[in-house]
Amino acid sequence: MALIAPSRRLRRTPFSDGVEAAGVKAYTVYNHMLLPTMFRSVEEDYRHLKEAVQVWDVACERQVELRGPDAGRLMQMLTPRDLRGMLPGQCYYVPIVDETGGMLNDPVAVKLTEDRWWISIADSDLLHWVKGIVYGFRLDVLVDEPDVSPLAVQGPKAEDLMAAVFGDAVRKIRFFRFGVFQFEGRDLVVARSGYSKQGGFEIYVEGGDIGMPLWNALMEAGQSMDVHAGCPNLIERIEGGLLSYGNDMTRDNTPHECGLGRFCNTATAIGCVGRDALLRVAKEGPVRQICALDIGGERVPGCDRLWPVMAGARQVGNVSSAAWSPDHDTNVAIGMVRMTHWDAGTELLVRCPDGDRPAVVRDGFWA
Amino acid sequence: MALIAPSRRLRRTPFSDGVEAAGVKAYTVYNHMLLPTMFRSVEEDYRHLKEAVQVWDVACERQVELRGPDAGRLMQMLTPRDLRGMLPGQCYYVPIVDETGGMLNDPVAVKLTEDRWWISIADSDLLHWVKGIVYGFRLDVLVDEPDVSPLAVQGPKAEDLMAAVFGDAVRKIRFFRFGVFQFEGRDLVVARSGYSKQGGFEIYVEGGDIGMPLWNALMEAGQSMDVHAGCPNLIERIEGGLLSYGNDMTRDNTPHECGLGRFCNTATAIGCVGRDALLRVAKEGPVRQICALDIGGERVPGCDRLWPVMAGARQVGNVSSAAWSPDHDTNVAIGMVRMTHWDAGTELLVRCPDGDRPAVVRDGFWA
Repeated sequence: MALIAPSRRLRRTPFSDGVEAAGVKAYTVYNHMLLPTMFRSVEEDYRHLKEAVQVWDVACERQVELRGPDAGRLMQMLTPRDLRGMLPGQCYYVPIVDETGGMLNDPVAVKLTEDRWWISIADSDLLHWVKGIVYGFRLDVLVDEPDVSPLAVQGPKAEDLMAAVFGDAVRKIRFFRFGVFQFEGRDLVVARSGYSKQGGFEIYVEGGDIGMPLWNALMEAGQSMDVHAGCPNLIERIEGGLLSYGNDMTRDNTPHECGLGRFCNTATAIGCVGRDALLRVAKEGPVRQICALDIGGERVPGCDRLWPVMAGARQVGNVSSAAWSPDHDTNVAIGMVRMTHWDAGTELLVRCPDGDRPAVVRDGFWA
Repeated sequence: MALIAPSRRLRRTPFSDGVEAAGVKAYTVYNHMLLPTMFRSVEEDYRHLKEAVQVWDVACERQVELRGPDAGRLMQMLTPRDLRGMLPGQCYYVPIVDETGGMLNDPVAVKLTEDRWWISIADSDLLHWVKGIVYGFRLDVLVDEPDVSPLAVQGPKAEDLMAAVFGDAVRKIRFFRFGVFQFEGRDLVVARSGYSKQGGFEIYVEGGDIGMPLWNALMEAGQSMDVHAGCPNLIERIEGGLLSYGNDMTRDNTPHECGLGRFCNTATAIGCVGRDALLRVAKEGPVRQICALDIGGERVPGCDRLWPVMAGARQVGNVSSAAWSPDHDTNVAIGMVRMTHWDAGTELLVRCPDGDRPAVVRDGFWA
């Protein structure tokens, strides 16, 4: 494996000093920012995430802030999810599509007030698309990337740790809701959300200067809970079916192909830029779709490119993420498979770099 | 230094197999793609680049293709450079600005025909901005990222190597012009350009399948010229004043602050989205500007964040790129300095991670 070359362009975060002190071993780059991928080993981090509590530097989930009278209208232009029933205090997972219905991002939209939103983005410069739309339609809305850096607290002991720092009221936050809590006199948005299935919170740290004080407070308060620096875990996220934009889906895919049809209300999402293109797909369904796959054999190598999925000599899909799962004693994988072969139980071959392996389509993810 | 974690999201290129076989030691990520940063050492690569010839995998310079009757109009909307005199066969370095005059990218625009352009982009998803503008203005133009991956041949022996593979006609290509040359029966755009001051070419490899055959042909033909795999070199690009988007400039900066005023014809660039915002700056000039700086003392550490530039207790700028230059026996740096302190010869302090160092503003770059 090669090193990552530091430069200002791969932006540090308000928590980078803590991440380095905790002994980060590998990074990826996400929204032009450093995102840790491993502290002890991917498997040790995985075990610990499922048993204790971790603090994650996910500052790379940059925010696109929409502010002004047209903010709500703009937000609806971006997504086929119907936002009419959404209230301030709620977070929605929203597919963002272009005019052809292709996925541009799969962020969480945070509705702060009627005229102020944060879009907590996956890895693409969604800001550019939003600014282009705003300019083209002359909307009355400010669009910018504010100084807001999410810090996630994930794992079975996450609630206890959060309560120790923010008070017991955090326990009352419901899933994909947020409240405003104080830290060092500063109001912070705290949501029950995060990129794992172990439960937890995301703190939208507004103002980079309190990044390390908050990091340190969490580490201090969590000593008895075996808190450790962590990061989104490859194995755990595949088990949980948490998709990764750029890995499991790209602009080539519709939300329906990504299994995100349940987040689309294309008929009623009036104003959505991709609505015309998606109405037909919404009615007829996609011809290929994200699936969970068990891949046989020993531990798979790292999946750094699409692996063809074969039915005999015919390619019927690709695997985009894969890892050995200690808990399920198999290689867990996410792929996209054509409808002719996507039924649960279908036996296929995956063309891995070290040879073909048997694989079986599952009827759902592992966790 | 930490490792880079492989994943499909950090896209491989058509040349990645060659890069790995050549022993790449470090990568950065650029347009969601792997970009090598070091093969032997940054200083060995630098010496070799200045003396021989290197083949660079710069596939990460992704293309935004504009095709259709409104392509030319769209291209002019994107930049304050006046494109009226540009002919097919020419390449222009073009600042790309948003409606406030902030830099979104600093690509090379390649005019293939009157209604077909490639924009060879720096590190930001310019495609999103362009698509937003096209959608908002209902322009008749297709916008997409084609399967085109630039491969650069750079160094004093670049012309000889290119002639050995493409024939002597490549010697006639003028600077920032291109011709169409055949390789294995395929037509390829070959431009005299590249991200070094050592001279050379960029081959726009259309079709990933011929990436490795071309890489191998260049390596084979260049054996007697001491050809080696290389990459944009930090030291050499600072010496030459080649700016790096995301390092030396961001959306916060106007082209004028970046010293790119000579590429702006704001008065006559009718249709440019940022024209209103830039007209005033173009008249009055910026209040801070990119400068070359000599930084004193021993070899500087890696510059992975902005280093404050001080005049006494007052901050008057930042350094964004810095490296020890063996040829100039000093630390060469790029920074942005306020007009009160940007005159050549001004003595300042740079707040490096290992302490304050004396620095002097130069009247230009080194090479």
